[in-house]
Parts: sequence; structure tokens; C-alpha cells
Amino acid sequence: MKKIFLIGAGRSASTLIKYLAKQAKENNHHLSIGDVNLDLAKKVVKENEHIRLFLFDINNKEQRQEEIKKSDLVISMLPAFMHHEVAKECVEFNKHMVTASYVSEEMKSLEEEVKKRGLVFMNEIGVDPGLDHLSAMRVIDTIRHQGGKMREFETFTGGLVAPESDNNPWNYKFTWNPRNVVLAGSGGPVKFIQEGQYKYIPYQKLFRRTEIIEIEGYGKFEGYANRDSLKYREIYNLQNILTLYRGTLRRPGFCRAWDLFIQLGLTDDSYKMENTENMTYRQFLNSFLAYHPFDRVEIKVMQYLGLHQDDTVLMEKLEWLDLFSNKKIGLPNASPAQILQHILEQKWKMEASDKDMIVMWHKFVFWMDDEIREIQSSMVIKGDDHIDTAMAKTVGLPVGIAAKLILEEKITKPGVHIPITSDIYIPILTELEKYGITFNEKVISR
Amino acid sequence: MKKIFLIGAGRSASTLIKYLAKQAKENNHHLSIGDVNLDLAKKVVKENEHIRLFLFDINNKEQRQEEIKKSDLVISMLPAFMHHEVAKECVEFNKHMVTASYVSEEMKSLEEEVKKRGLVFMNEIGVDPGLDHLSAMRVIDTIRHQGGKMREFETFTGGLVAPESDNNPWNYKFTWNPRNVVLAGSGGPVKFIQEGQYKYIPYQKLFRRTEIIEIEGYGKFEGYANRDSLKYREIYNLQNILTLYRGTLRRPGFCRAWDLFIQLGLTDDSYKMENTENMTYRQFLNSFLAYHPFDRVEIKVMQYLGLHQDDTVLMEKLEWLDLFSNKKIGLPNASPAQILQHILEQKWKMEASDKDMIVMWHKFVFWMDDEIREIQSSMVIKGDDHIDTAMAKTVGLPVGIAAKLILEEKITKPGVHIPITSDIYIPILTELEKYGITFNEKVISR
Repeated sequence: MKKIFLIGAGRSASTLIKYLAKQAKENNHHLSIGDVNLDLAKKVVKENEHIRLFLFDINNKEQRQEEIKKSDLVISMLPAFMHHEVAKECVEFNKHMVTASYVSEEMKSLEEEVKKRGLVFMNEIGVDPGLDHLSAMRVIDTIRHQGGKMREFETFTGGLVAPESDNNPWNYKFTWNPRNVVLAGSGGPVKFIQEGQYKYIPYQKLFRRTEIIEIEGYGKFEGYANRDSLKYREIYNLQNILTLYRGTLRRPGFCRAWDLFIQLGLTDDSYKMENTENMTYRQFLNSFLAYHPFDRVEIKVMQYLGLHQDDTVLMEKLEWLDLFSNKKIGLPNASPAQILQHILEQKWKMEASDKDMIVMWHKFVFWMDDEIREIQSSMVIKGDDHIDTAMAKTVGLPVGIAAKLILEEKITKPGVHIPITSDIYIPILTELEKYGITFNEKVISR
Repeated sequence: MKKIFLIGAGRSASTLIKYLAKQAKENNHHLSIGDVNLDLAKKVVKENEHIRLFLFDINNKEQRQEEIKKSDLVISMLPAFMHHEVAKECVEFNKHMVTASYVSEEMKSLEEEVKKRGLVFMNEIGVDPGLDHLSAMRVIDTIRHQGGKMREFETFTGGLVAPESDNNPWNYKFTWNPRNVVLAGSGGPVKFIQEGQYKYIPYQKLFRRTEIIEIEGYGKFEGYANRDSLKYREIYNLQNILTLYRGTLRRPGFCRAWDLFIQLGLTDDSYKMENTENMTYRQFLNSFLAYHPFDRVEIKVMQYLGLHQDDTVLMEKLEWLDLFSNKKIGLPNASPAQILQHILEQKWKMEASDKDMIVMWHKFVFWMDDEIREIQSSMVIKGDDHIDTAMAKTVGLPVGIAAKLILEEKITKPGVHIPITSDIYIPILTELEKYGITFNEKVISR
């Protein structure tokens, strides 16, 4: 009986746990699920001869090693920085490993030993990174196979609220880590290539340099650039490509309004403000505006940000967040970004009945037969409910399928991998289709 | 014969050296001047029985300790981070010390031992910090002495080009460290108090939140906020003040144009750009603008920054810097800020015949006799030439006078000091007047 050890049964693991439980029963595997909190796992599966749930502390070395030793493959759904000890021990005890995280330097450093021992370490096999690799490389390889040469590649992903639950003027709710949303783009300048020219966007312009894309049946989205557009240039073997752009999707209008927060300084996480606990939302906003004995905060915001009297769509977004209200913040010693996150969390909260949605979109432009041709590929997945969210499905299914294929020796090439070769992406994409995760690829006439 | 040891005879030390040489002769002191480069010292003084010039390496411990031992007082004009070893040895060998730098934590940590040994360590006795302390505390103490209570304090300093040498559309030349000018304000958010309210300005708005001040005979200036406005709140004993604001002065129009660089991302020093050596100025600018096959860089800049067709004053400032030209940058592997600095250094260069100018302005608002009253204090000093610059005079004279007064035991209170008490500021301000450094204090009717 082959054994999988899943470390981490948090928020986005529901679909993964269900998938692995089903596989364990059908294929006579055994699944051990360890976490400090088993609430979610208990909600979605019951213990039986194939499934064991147990309290697990990653920092308990004895327990950790004992569990890893007992398994054939370890899936780590821990935060990325916690993989390393597990990875080292998987090498030591000759176990395969699967993570949805970016390959760290530490993970990379194990490559030689992993290969020597014939192990498969599969990383970046969630949604982004993950589904983006699988789906993009399938198209890129096909183009190359048919004699095409890549000219441009753009790729966007967004975690959004599904249209049926989209009922606020921002057309957005937090479906994932709110802190990452608040700090998005603030880590450094954005860099990408367009028509062979390196382009740079400073943070204070990032949300004004958006691109509109449209996906049939789902309407329009806008994308802002990710920091690391050039990251995959070598990995995808796109060294001579003229345009390479990775971005994040929101609904149109979101970025223009988000930029107001940046311009005001509300997304700064580098310092603590004074007296934040007893401050009101209105005072918070006013802290970033010039003093005036009479002028209202509303008119000062409009003047400061250069908003015209008829820019009501923007002002309504701010008003809907209660930013001009006298609500108390109630957070002691907080940074502007922490306060903004707190304010947004009250309003951008997913209700139990709300559904989320993951949207992915790629654009491939290539030379073939003396022509420039274009293919677009898109995927839209909605959550079933607040347990089997789109996020849980798109992260969990590729991870689960990869784990199963490794265990069944259908993915066998030893090494520290990301899913960019056909031996990996073909069987995974094929199985994903059964779960409704499909990419709509279409040729665009130009 | 009392002995002064001056470490550092660089750019801004000319006036200091002349002053100390004159004092040495008149008062029968001895002056030793050590630096790795004696070119400037040799230009301004000759060796004689009172003056010795010698090659000195701060990292040569033996030489350093020997020279410190021989002296009664050490002046360190080194960069601030290099004071520490000297300061420790001044304590060890019982020598007084003078610097123009901010009191570091390391300097502060010597306080107890300095006091115990009866030594005077005088810091922040240049122009800013230095003259600002001397002149502001004289007014603040007078107000308090007369029963007034401080309500508001604003203080601005600027290192500028003198009007007779002011011949470019920016009304600015580099009279001091260009790198600091390029990176000004980028280190973190600005924080100050206005009417009892904490106010914060993010970097991307800093140069749009300026204040205009006017100094009789010198016209108008504009000030942008320094990062550390609250720094002196406790030191000046202004804990209950309603408005506290420190800023930097430029000529009007400078900041609005400088903001264009910030909006484009040209002041970012956090990353290196690609292919900078062979890049032209025009390509540099274009790296921050969206790609377009036809549109000119000029129109893209105007559109991106929201400039109207008639905003010619701004565009002319950019054009005058040759930013749209095909000049080669010629700097390998450079950050945007390094490239911008390089471009500006070609154009904002002080010619040998150019004179610089230091401008300082304080505003004191206080309650007295049931009224709100206001005093303004201003100082404008021009350089004599490119040796005795305004910077050299305003840094060197307070340092030299302080050193003399300590040596002559007219400033005697032991400790690590900054010049904020009347025993220090009165004799120094009095002697500064002889050298033309005077503050014009006037009561403003409100």
C-alpha cells in the first residue's frame, strides 16, 4: 500500500484532500494528513482504513521524521519558507515530494542529490505558479513543433469574486491573502519587455498602466503588471522573445481606484502611524491631506488627487468603503497598509454563500509561414461554495494529480522540477479536464 | 601652546582651515591638519611654526593615536560614520572633540565617560545641523524668557546657487552632494505635525506639497518637507507644539518639475537597468514610457504625466537637460538614479566663477499676552568664490569658533553636546556676526 503524507490542511486544501481521499480508496493508497488544526480536514473527509488525520507540529523533529519515513511521497502545503527541512528529510529518507511553491534556492540546491537518488520533487504545481506553466507550455511547445517561432507572450491571472456574487462597486472581494493584495506591486519596480525594449514602471504608476482583456462569456478584465515578468524567459526558453509580460487581473475600474490609495500613501507598510487605535476612518484619510480649518476631507481628497466633480465613480468607491465615516479603526500601533487592510476586510469579505473565480489568460504571438499569428488561451473556474473554492480547486487538483502520477510512476524523471515538459503537463492537463479545468484555446485572426 | 588636530581637509574645509590658521597665529595655538589629500589645505594656508600639514590615513591606528595624543582638541570633518574610532580615542586620551555631524548612537553612548573626564564633545555645529540650532534656540529661548509659549515652528534650509550665477531654467546647480539631491525624500514617508494633527506625505506626493516663503531682497523660495520634522521636538523642548515642520528650500518651480522625475521612476536607486552604457538619454526616458511604434517620446511624456500643451515651462526644463537628445549615457550597469545624477551633473555643474548661496528661514508662532504673535528669522550667505563657498563658510565658521571657544575654556560644560543652550549659542552667534553670518529677525504683524 503506497503512502502519501500531506502536511498542511488549511484553507485551500479542501479539494486536494477530497481528491487524495478518493484516489486512496480507488487505488488502495494510504493518506496521512497532519496539521496543527484539523477542522477543515474533518469537514471534508472521515478517517477510515485509507485515511488517517492527526495533529502534527512541523517543528517536532521526531514526529516529522517518523511520518516522512513511513511515507512514499510527501506533499507540503506549508508556507514556502517552511519546505526546506521537509525537503532535506525527503532526500535523506528517499521520498518523493510535491509543493505548489516557487522553487527556492534551497530547494534548487538539493537537485543533484534528488537526481542521484531517483526522486521526483515537483514544485510550482498549483494555480499560479502551476496551471500557468502547464497551459502555456502546451501551447508554446505546439507552436514550436509546428515550426513557429515565439514573438510575444503575455499571461495574466486573477483571483476574483464570481459574477453571481459580485455585488459591490469595486467588483472585488478578498478570495486570498488580503495582505498580499494590499502590498501588491510595492516591493520594487516592475520590469518587462515590449517589442524588444526593456520597460520599467514605478509603483506610483503601476495601476495606471493597465491593459484591458476580454474573455468570451465573462466580459472585460484589466491587468496590471507583475514585478517579475522576465522570470520565465529562460525557463520557457524565450530568450529572443520581443514582448514578455505577466500580470494580475481585476475587473475594469479597480486599478484606477486602487491607485488613489497609492497616491495618498495608504499602502505604505514601512512605518507605524501615531494614535491609530482611537483614530476614525476619516481621520486616517485626513492624515494624508494638508491641514485646513474648514475644508472637508471629501473636497481635499478630490483636489489632492486631481479628481473632477464628475469623477463620481471613483468617489463612490471610496465612500462605499466608509472611508469618510467616523468609524473607529481600533488597531493599535498600525501601519497605513495594516489599517487599509483592516478597513477593506470589513467590506471585501466573502460571505458563506459567495463564490470565487479564478481567471487565467494567455496571449501567444508567433511567426509561422511568413506570417504573424496569434493564439489566445483562457480558463475561468468558479468555486462551488466556500469550501471548494476556485482557489482550492485550481491549487489542489494539479497538486493531487501530480502526487498520484508520481506515486503510480507515470511521472518518473528524477530531479527538482516545475511542470513545463510534456511528460508532466500532458497527463495532468488531461486529468484536469475531467474536473472541468479546461483551457479555451483559439486562433485570433489578425 | 594649545594644539588642535583637524582631521579632513576636503571640499568644505577651506574657510575652517583659514579661520583656524588665523586663530593659531593670533592666540599662539598650534594647528595640525591631516588628510590623505592635502591639495585644498595647501591652497589656502602655508606651513609655519603654527601650522603643520601632513598625510594622514584614518585607518592607520598608530598614526591616529599618536596625533590625537599630541593634541588638546580634535576636529573631525570626516564622513559621520568615521567619527567613532576617533571619538573613542579622544575619550581614552582625554581630548575635546568637535564635529558637524548628527549625534550618532555611538557618540551618545560615550556621554557618561565624556562627562566624567570633564571633556566637551560638540556636534551638529555646521550649517544644518548647526546654524539652525543656534539661531532657532536663541529666538525660542527669548520668547520663553518673555513669557511666551511656542505654538508653531517651521524651519527651512537650502543650498542654492547665488542669484548672480543663476542662469538655468531650474534655478539650481549642485553646490553639495548630488547623490543626496537625487535621492532626497526617497528614504521613507515624511511625517510632521500641523495644528496638532500628525500628517504624512508619501514620496510620490512630496514635491507637490510645497510651501512658498519670501525673503526680503532675495525673492521667493519653495520648501518641501524633510523626512524628520519631529526630530527636534524633544531636543528643543517643544513637546506641546501644534505645528512642527522642517524643510528644504529650492527656487519656485523646481519641485513641480522634479516631481516629473519621481513620477517617471527616474530617482529609483533600488535596481540596475539593462544595457545602460550604450543607451541614449532619449532611450532612458523611453524605458519608463509605454511602447508605441510611432508616437514621439515628447508626446508620450506629456500624456503620461498629464501635461497640457501649454505646460511649456515644465517641458523646457526637461529639454534643457537634453533628456530628449540622443546623447550616450556611457555608464555601465547603472540604476535610474545614477543615470539621472549623471545627466544632471553635466548641466547643474558649478563653474569656477559661480557663487553658491545658503538660505535659512525660521517661523516662530507663539502665544504671549493673550495674543498669537509671529517672528520670522532668515539668513542668506553667498560664497566668495569656488573656494570660500557659502557652504564652506557656514559649515566651517561655527565649527572653528566652537573649537576655539572650547580650547580657550569659554565653553566648558562637560558632555556630548549639540549647540542648543545659551552658553554655547550666544558666543558663537556673536562671533559669527563679525564674519557676516547674521540672522534677520523680524516681528510679523498678524
